[in-house]
Amino acid sequence: MGQALSLGRRGLGRVWPNPNVGCVIVQGGRVIGRGWTADGGRPHAETQALHGIDAQGATAYVTLEPCAHYGQTPPCADALAKAGVARVVIAAPDPDPRVDGGGVAKLRAAGITVETGVRRAEAERDMAGFLSCITRNRPFVTLKLAASFDGRIATATGESQWITGQQARRHVHAMRMTHDAVLVGAGTVRADDPTLTVRNLGAVRQPVRVVASRKLKLDAPAMMAGVEAAPVWLCHADGAPVHSFVDQGAVSVPCKTQGQQIDPVDMMTKLADAGLTRVYCEGGGKLAASLLNCDLVDEVVGYTAGLVIGAEGTPGLGAMGLERLNAAPRFTLVDSRQIGADLMHRWARHA
Amino acid sequence: MGQALSLGRRGLGRVWPNPNVGCVIVQGGRVIGRGWTADGGRPHAETQALHGIDAQGATAYVTLEPCAHYGQTPPCADALAKAGVARVVIAAPDPDPRVDGGGVAKLRAAGITVETGVRRAEAERDMAGFLSCITRNRPFVTLKLAASFDGRIATATGESQWITGQQARRHVHAMRMTHDAVLVGAGTVRADDPTLTVRNLGAVRQPVRVVASRKLKLDAPAMMAGVEAAPVWLCHADGAPVHSFVDQGAVSVPCKTQGQQIDPVDMMTKLADAGLTRVYCEGGGKLAASLLNCDLVDEVVGYTAGLVIGAEGTPGLGAMGLERLNAAPRFTLVDSRQIGADLMHRWARHA
Repeated sequence: MGQALSLGRRGLGRVWPNPNVGCVIVQGGRVIGRGWTADGGRPHAETQALHGIDAQGATAYVTLEPCAHYGQTPPCADALAKAGVARVVIAAPDPDPRVDGGGVAKLRAAGITVETGVRRAEAERDMAGFLSCITRNRPFVTLKLAASFDGRIATATGESQWITGQQARRHVHAMRMTHDAVLVGAGTVRADDPTLTVRNLGAVRQPVRVVASRKLKLDAPAMMAGVEAAPVWLCHADGAPVHSFVDQGAVSVPCKTQGQQIDPVDMMTKLADAGLTRVYCEGGGKLAASLLNCDLVDEVVGYTAGLVIGAEGTPGLGAMGLERLNAAPRFTLVDSRQIGADLMHRWARHA
Repeated sequence: MGQALSLGRRGLGRVWPNPNVGCVIVQGGRVIGRGWTADGGRPHAETQALHGIDAQGATAYVTLEPCAHYGQTPPCADALAKAGVARVVIAAPDPDPRVDGGGVAKLRAAGITVETGVRRAEAERDMAGFLSCITRNRPFVTLKLAASFDGRIATATGESQWITGQQARRHVHAMRMTHDAVLVGAGTVRADDPTLTVRNLGAVRQPVRVVASRKLKLDAPAMMAGVEAAPVWLCHADGAPVHSFVDQGAVSVPCKTQGQQIDPVDMMTKLADAGLTRVYCEGGGKLAASLLNCDLVDEVVGYTAGLVIGAEGTPGLGAMGLERLNAAPRFTLVDSRQIGADLMHRWARHA
C-alpha cells in the first residue's frame, strides 16, 4: 500500500477533476502491475495497473475504493473482477455518491475478498482535494505566505523582489505543480504582474491561473500572454468587463459578491464545480484574509526570510476584523525545514 | 575541550561581568579536575578546577586564555604554573587589554607547553557576551519575537495572552536564564506590566530587569515589588523622575537621547560599562526596531504560533524607516524546532 500511495501522489495537480489514485498488483509475492491515475484523470489507476498483465488470483492494493459506475470509462470494480483478481485491499472509501460503498459491494458480489481502511489517513491526506470537493463542495486550499522575519512582504515603497531566496522560490514552483490551480487577488496582479507558471521543473501540465477580481480592473496582465499553455480563469462579479479577456482565451467564472469583494465561499464552490480539487493561493493579503475569515484555508505554508522590514512594510495578511484572540483561525505545525537561507513551515487547519 | 566548553556554558547569565569559562585538568588520561567560573564571576574556572588536586605534570584545557593580571583574584596563569601543570590547551584568546597574550606568555615563561585555538569558534560563540563587551563595548544582544503566523503580537483590542503556548513561554524563561539581563521598553511595561523573572526553573541568579524609558512615565510597575530578588535598572533621560524608583531599590542608568527615544547605542555602552555582557530584549516593537536600526542585535529568536490575527493586530516590530530592501538588517538561520505547538527559530546576525 505504501507503494500505491507513492504512485498516487504522482498525480497531484495533474488529474483533476479526478482523484489521484495509486494501484499495485501483487501475485505470488511479486509486484506484477503498477498504475496511477493518468494526466487529466483517465485512465484510472486500476486500469493502468492491470494493463497487459495476467492478474489471475492476484491481490490489488488501491488507495481509493474502485469506482462502480459507468462514467467516461467502465467501472474499475468490474475491471478488477474481470481480470480475476482474488483480493482487493483499499485504503480510503470513496464518498462520491456514485460509488460510496458500491465499489466494495460489486467486488464482494464477484467473490473477491475485500479489505478496507489500510493506511486510510495517509490516503485521505493525499487525496484531500478530491475528497474536499465531494464532501465540502470546495477545493482543498493551501495558502502561501513568503515574508520577512516580521511578516512583511514588501517595503513601504513596494519593493518586494526578493525577500525569500532562489531555493524557496523554486520550492514554491514545486508546490504550484502539486496543485490544480494557483489563485491570486487582483491587487497582486496589479502590483507584481506575476505569470504564476511552473518553471524549470519539467511540468507536463501547468496549473490553472485563477484571478479573483470583482471588477476586473486589470491592465493587460502578463499571464494572458501564455493563456494557451496555462489557462487563465477570472472570478469576477456580474457586470465586470470579462469579454475582452475571454476573447483572448480566458475563462469567465462569474461569482457572487460580498461587500467590496468576491464572495470567497461562492468562488470556491464555483471552482469545485469546474473541477478544481487543489488550489494554491499566493495572496495578496486581502484575499488571504478573506479566505481565512471564511475558514476556507486547509493549510498555510510560510517561508520566513532572515531579514526585518519594519511596521511600515506591507503585511502579508490583510485586515481580519478579529475581535477576540480565541476567535483567531488556528493551525497545527506539520513540517518545518530550512530551504536555502529561508525557513519553510507548513501548518494544517485544526480538525 | 568539549567538556570544558560544556562546563563553561553553565555560567551563562550567572557570571557577569566576567567571562563564562570552563576548565578541565587531565593527568595520565584521567580527568582529575573540572571547574567553571563561579556564580558572580569568582573564583575563576582554573582555580575551581585546581582546587584540592595534585596537578603535577597534568594538562589543563581551558576555554579562554588564563588571566595574567591581579584583579580581585591572583592571575590564573600563575595558579596553573604553581600547580605544576605541564601543558595548557586554550580555546580562545582573551582580547582584554590586561590579558591579550599576557596569559600565554606567562605560562610559556614558566616552561609550560601552550596550545591555542582549539575549538576557538565554539568558545567565542559561548563567550560572545564577554568578548562583545571587550571588543565592541556593548553586550551581546538577543531579540525575542513571539508572534502569530502573520507576525502580530496582539489583537487590535490589545489582547495578547496567550499567542504562543506554555512550552514556548517556558523556553523563554530558560533563555532569560542564560542572559545577564532582560530588556523591555516602557510601552511593554505599560501594556503588559511583566515581571520578567525566571520562574519554575530553579534559577539561582535572576537576570537584571532593564527598562528603557526616556521619561519614566511608569505607574507602579509590578517588577518593582520583587526588586530585592531581581534587580531593576532604569535607562532614562536626564530629568526623568528616577528618584522615586531609586528609593524603592531600582538602579538609575542615565542615557543620552536620540529624538523621542533613549539613544540605543549609548544605552548599550552604559549597560556594558555596568558589567552586563548578555542582554535579552523582549520588545516592544519600537525598542526592537531601534536596536535593529542601530545594528545592535546579534541574534533574533522567533516563536511562531499557528494562528492568524490580521493586519489590524499589533506588529511585533515597529517602524524601521527602511527605504531599500537591500538596506534591511539580515540574519542567518542557525536553529529551528518545534516547541510545544509553536515553531522556534533562531537567526544570527550576518557576520
